[in-house]
Amino acid sequence: MDEYFLLSNSTAKKLYGAVKDLPIIDYHNHLSLEDVKSNNRFNNVYDLWVAPDPYKHRVMRMCGVNEEYITGNKDKKEKFIKWCETFPKLIGNPLYHWSLMELSYVFGIEDLPNGENAVSIYEKCNAFLEENEVTPKFFLNKFNAELVCPCFTLTDNPEILKNVKGVTPSLRADNVLAPDKKFVSELSKITNTEIKNLSDYKSAVSKQIKVFRKAGCIFSDHALDNGFRFFEDDSDSEKYFDRLINGDAEKKQKEKFFSYMLCFIAQEYAKNGMIMQLHIGAQRYTSSALRQRLGAAGGFAAIGSCVDIDSVAKMLDTIDKTKERLPKTVLFTLNPADNATFSCLSGSFSRDGKSGLITQGPAWWWCDHKKGITDMLNDTASFSLLYNFLGMTTDSRSFLSFVRHDYFRRILCSVLGEMFENGEIFDYNALEDLVKRMCYKNAKDVIGEI
Amino acid sequence: MDEYFLLSNSTAKKLYGAVKDLPIIDYHNHLSLEDVKSNNRFNNVYDLWVAPDPYKHRVMRMCGVNEEYITGNKDKKEKFIKWCETFPKLIGNPLYHWSLMELSYVFGIEDLPNGENAVSIYEKCNAFLEENEVTPKFFLNKFNAELVCPCFTLTDNPEILKNVKGVTPSLRADNVLAPDKKFVSELSKITNTEIKNLSDYKSAVSKQIKVFRKAGCIFSDHALDNGFRFFEDDSDSEKYFDRLINGDAEKKQKEKFFSYMLCFIAQEYAKNGMIMQLHIGAQRYTSSALRQRLGAAGGFAAIGSCVDIDSVAKMLDTIDKTKERLPKTVLFTLNPADNATFSCLSGSFSRDGKSGLITQGPAWWWCDHKKGITDMLNDTASFSLLYNFLGMTTDSRSFLSFVRHDYFRRILCSVLGEMFENGEIFDYNALEDLVKRMCYKNAKDVIGEI
Amino acid sequence: MDEYFLLSNSTAKKLYGAVKDLPIIDYHNHLSLEDVKSNNRFNNVYDLWVAPDPYKHRVMRMCGVNEEYITGNKDKKEKFIKWCETFPKLIGNPLYHWSLMELSYVFGIEDLPNGENAVSIYEKCNAFLEENEVTPKFFLNKFNAELVCPCFTLTDNPEILKNVKGVTPSLRADNVLAPDKKFVSELSKITNTEIKNLSDYKSAVSKQIKVFRKAGCIFSDHALDNGFRFFEDDSDSEKYFDRLINGDAEKKQKEKFFSYMLCFIAQEYAKNGMIMQLHIGAQRYTSSALRQRLGAAGGFAAIGSCVDIDSVAKMLDTIDKTKERLPKTVLFTLNPADNATFSCLSGSFSRDGKSGLITQGPAWWWCDHKKGITDMLNDTASFSLLYNFLGMTTDSRSFLSFVRHDYFRRILCSVLGEMFENGEIFDYNALEDLVKRMCYKNAKDVIGEI
Repeated sequence: MDEYFLLSNSTAKKLYGAVKDLPIIDYHNHLSLEDVKSNNRFNNVYDLWVAPDPYKHRVMRMCGVNEEYITGNKDKKEKFIKWCETFPKLIGNPLYHWSLMELSYVFGIEDLPNGENAVSIYEKCNAFLEENEVTPKFFLNKFNAELVCPCFTLTDNPEILKNVKGVTPSLRADNVLAPDKKFVSELSKITNTEIKNLSDYKSAVSKQIKVFRKAGCIFSDHALDNGFRFFEDDSDSEKYFDRLINGDAEKKQKEKFFSYMLCFIAQEYAKNGMIMQLHIGAQRYTSSALRQRLGAAGGFAAIGSCVDIDSVAKMLDTIDKTKERLPKTVLFTLNPADNATFSCLSGSFSRDGKSGLITQGPAWWWCDHKKGITDMLNDTASFSLLYNFLGMTTDSRSFLSFVRHDYFRRILCSVLGEMFENGEIFDYNALEDLVKRMCYKNAKDVIGEI
Repeated sequence: MDEYFLLSNSTAKKLYGAVKDLPIIDYHNHLSLEDVKSNNRFNNVYDLWVAPDPYKHRVMRMCGVNEEYITGNKDKKEKFIKWCETFPKLIGNPLYHWSLMELSYVFGIEDLPNGENAVSIYEKCNAFLEENEVTPKFFLNKFNAELVCPCFTLTDNPEILKNVKGVTPSLRADNVLAPDKKFVSELSKITNTEIKNLSDYKSAVSKQIKVFRKAGCIFSDHALDNGFRFFEDDSDSEKYFDRLINGDAEKKQKEKFFSYMLCFIAQEYAKNGMIMQLHIGAQRYTSSALRQRLGAAGGFAAIGSCVDIDSVAKMLDTIDKTKERLPKTVLFTLNPADNATFSCLSGSFSRDGKSGLITQGPAWWWCDHKKGITDMLNDTASFSLLYNFLGMTTDSRSFLSFVRHDYFRRILCSVLGEMFENGEIFDYNALEDLVKRMCYKNAKDVIGEI
Repeated sequence: MDEYFLLSNSTAKKLYGAVKDLPIIDYHNHLSLEDVKSNNRFNNVYDLWVAPDPYKHRVMRMCGVNEEYITGNKDKKEKFIKWCETFPKLIGNPLYHWSLMELSYVFGIEDLPNGENAVSIYEKCNAFLEENEVTPKFFLNKFNAELVCPCFTLTDNPEILKNVKGVTPSLRADNVLAPDKKFVSELSKITNTEIKNLSDYKSAVSKQIKVFRKAGCIFSDHALDNGFRFFEDDSDSEKYFDRLINGDAEKKQKEKFFSYMLCFIAQEYAKNGMIMQLHIGAQRYTSSALRQRLGAAGGFAAIGSCVDIDSVAKMLDTIDKTKERLPKTVLFTLNPADNATFSCLSGSFSRDGKSGLITQGPAWWWCDHKKGITDMLNDTASFSLLYNFLGMTTDSRSFLSFVRHDYFRRILCSVLGEMFENGEIFDYNALEDLVKRMCYKNAKDVIGEI
């Protein structure tokens, strides 16, 4: 890749020079706990570059590639070739950039993949894997990762990574808000408490969150999918809990319990000084055919309709009215048409002594590309404050995705460099300090605060 | 017009050079069947340039021009003068560009219309019409139109254009999903079948679709207007059908029948290898005063609220779960705030061997301008794949609107040329191939496939 | 500030030269009636620059400044210092620009505020206030304000400013649509009429609107907050009125009465030749903690979800179907994702002889910044007509906010200058005329018409 890739002006280049070597803090991702723990060596480029990346699977499907070459039984080389054949069709899509950055930064390969050079790339990459000890740790070193936080569910053991330097658990607590019998039973077991009713359940959740916090967990996250509505407590949560456990709760009862538990768990986060991430607006139900074949997270999700801001505001306010008040909260929005509303909402709650009580997260998932990042930054600047931006995180399943921190940094430097060159910012040093905060220092400070 | 109009960089100029002379395929429009069939000569510029263009009527109204000079009884010359007086007020609006392109490309006139030169333009244009045999065919030749598909309803005779080279019917099937007694009776007659119940109705629809397909019809379209909700089949459609025919169906019954029949007809499209266009999000009820004066399609429609993505996803999935599965589908969205959600949704359904099973259509109706096209292209690139883009179509009532294919091509070349010059695309030849696909080849391939 | 601040091309500079000295017409703002009337001299910069500006309070809160330094009991100098300490954190936010323009244009100070120079700026500003007679009138002169229209409620006496040159009341009539016993009693008193029922109430409203009109009031405004739905008249408004007065109306009854009275009052505006502004989409309920501490308008509001266009269209049409028909209407939208829908909707209603019967207002409140203004202008150009744009207004509580007219003019000139330089506009003189209209002449014409 060109050294100046995406750096569209000379101030951008200067700013990038100041941040490119800063460590990365990847505070929310879906890296395989098994891989991180075992630190096994990768020996086939397909396993590393294509297999764990649902984004690549998705575009292959969109180009009509047969599923047997994507997640099916074809051998790795055949699948790799189909992926390379797909690559030239990706002009304009972020995968066009990400894939080239991954090839270049990790393997030192500067080819544009296609059907003709697929085998040669396959062989060069595999030779690289033979010559170099490429393991999860390799990537942490390569990308100067100071802290990486893969997701655990509350019933996972947060201690399993305790000897892995630079890795602490983050908590994906979706099932806490939508429990079933199996989850409650697992929670009962792992917390060594009997769970007979909602009160027991909340105690167990509270107890296990402390275990996570003690294991270094700072970040939690919850998905508020398309259609999310907030309901105020109607004192019937005990009943809803029973019906969830019995498996016969109605839709609205599930939603009410979800609201109730979200308020409860947010207080636990506040009490433990944790940060609550809310990932808002995914449309996870699309193609039943793909869901049946690939499970719930196979890359076929979509973006939901614009969010009901009144519900989100009520939820935040209801939490803020509790004794513990709002924890530090990061709002991720999947629909870019909601950027302005979320940026603005982040400034509607505040607390003495707390800079950035609520902030908007970086451009998320389908929005993680030049356009999405640029839009998100411009909206945050205009409707909120860049100063409080917590930093980039990949939310990815692939170790190669760490390149996206560099992608983000380049785009950030270009956006702000352009503002500077347009005469909209009057102090270069203050700007450089801001960019450093946004790339690293704000996340570092937040971790340090805990 | 300047040869380099809208071509903002040198790569854009080069790309444009590669596509400007490609044929056009206008796969969805509202050209007058009568005009196309008769191929009568136009002899007054007003009839050609102003009368059939509701966009022009609308901006005249917005500038306070009396309706008698728009659709009223004033004579053609007086109306023409009012239009020219309006023109200087259109700076920034797409009609400013379209109108000049129409004057320049067809009549060779480079004047900027205004009150002072109106009569002179009127006379020059009419002289041109006297000297040249300007007919519907003239425009097909002039604009190198390889295929043009004006809308027929299902009870029109699709054979009427069978001797017109380069023209095949497209099917506007809205009334199939919202039948009344009159439509059912016409369908009964044209299909020569008795329609006593829903089953008969479906048979007749099915039979007539085959007639259309045989007559060369490839494209159908349906309007899903603002407020569209999808309902799953509740087995009561027979009842809803009866009430529709009786004219006493309730709103929700109409909506349920609409959903039911959409799923039915989509299977017919799939069976016959046809392409289903869905035009989503128009707000057709605005000013009653204008509706009363001008009928349902007088240029006073608006853009609806953001679409309920859950409904659209459920609709697509319900169709995909039928035996025939989804036909190739093109989603047109009228609200630009929905561009990202629709681009993304298009990638959430796929089929082995089918590139672009669902794609987003070109910037539609009120979005068909530099900003709308640019936004749509950037969103498709970022959230989906440009590679599968089906191509521009005018959706217009005016033969002069074919200039908009050139308008689209110029904007497309500028958008992608800029990406190339910014170092975001690494292979010029692949880019040129992509642009050719988007301007012509993809539509040509789809037609060829059928 | 640099003379060419925000003027990004040479046409922009030329256009700006043509409009920078035009008078301003600030047709909607919240300046203190007391201040305007008394014309007292300001003698502390804090009272002028920080105290009346909820935007500044908000960003201080977002940076964690303790409330005692914002609206609390700390002394003015201490509060001023905290504000200056906050300033360097605002890069990218409109307050970064506005604040510097305010300092520069009014006080001639070119410093970038920070903790170190805070005291020095405080002293220089206060010295300026000592040397110069800085009063409300000073600002009207300084900014060449031809007409300024601060908000009155219907029960305020519109005569109180009658001797203040260049100031006429505008009417903020929210409480007319949501009356309580207290408001009805005040209205009864000020109109000297007995109000026993809805009919009396409407007569009193009608009478008092005439009083406002006679006092020079041309502009009214109403807030249609997030969640606004329009209901057609169900003939029960008499009942809803009684329940509102009794304080026991249900939510839906309030909404129905609101719709009913909006249609009524719009006819009064039409009858009196007034202009109806609709400020649509604020989410005013966010943080209860801030509301409790600061009252209803403390700077903690947010942007609501996208608007229900069907409701807005029905409301406009229902008014247009009355005898008086629609008054000239200006739609302000707070959610930028609604820009295109509102721009488009403005063209869906029209009237013989009325240019711009409905127009979209300038980028409002949280959208009043470079990005918001640019987006609004581009959407108005593309989906409506710049030609009918009524002009900038500040909607502000601070006299210093008049700088935002200059801010708007610079951005407008840049946006249109760039179109011209890109070859999208073909007539410089027509463009310059357009820009003059948008900055001043259109508002002037509207006032003149009345």
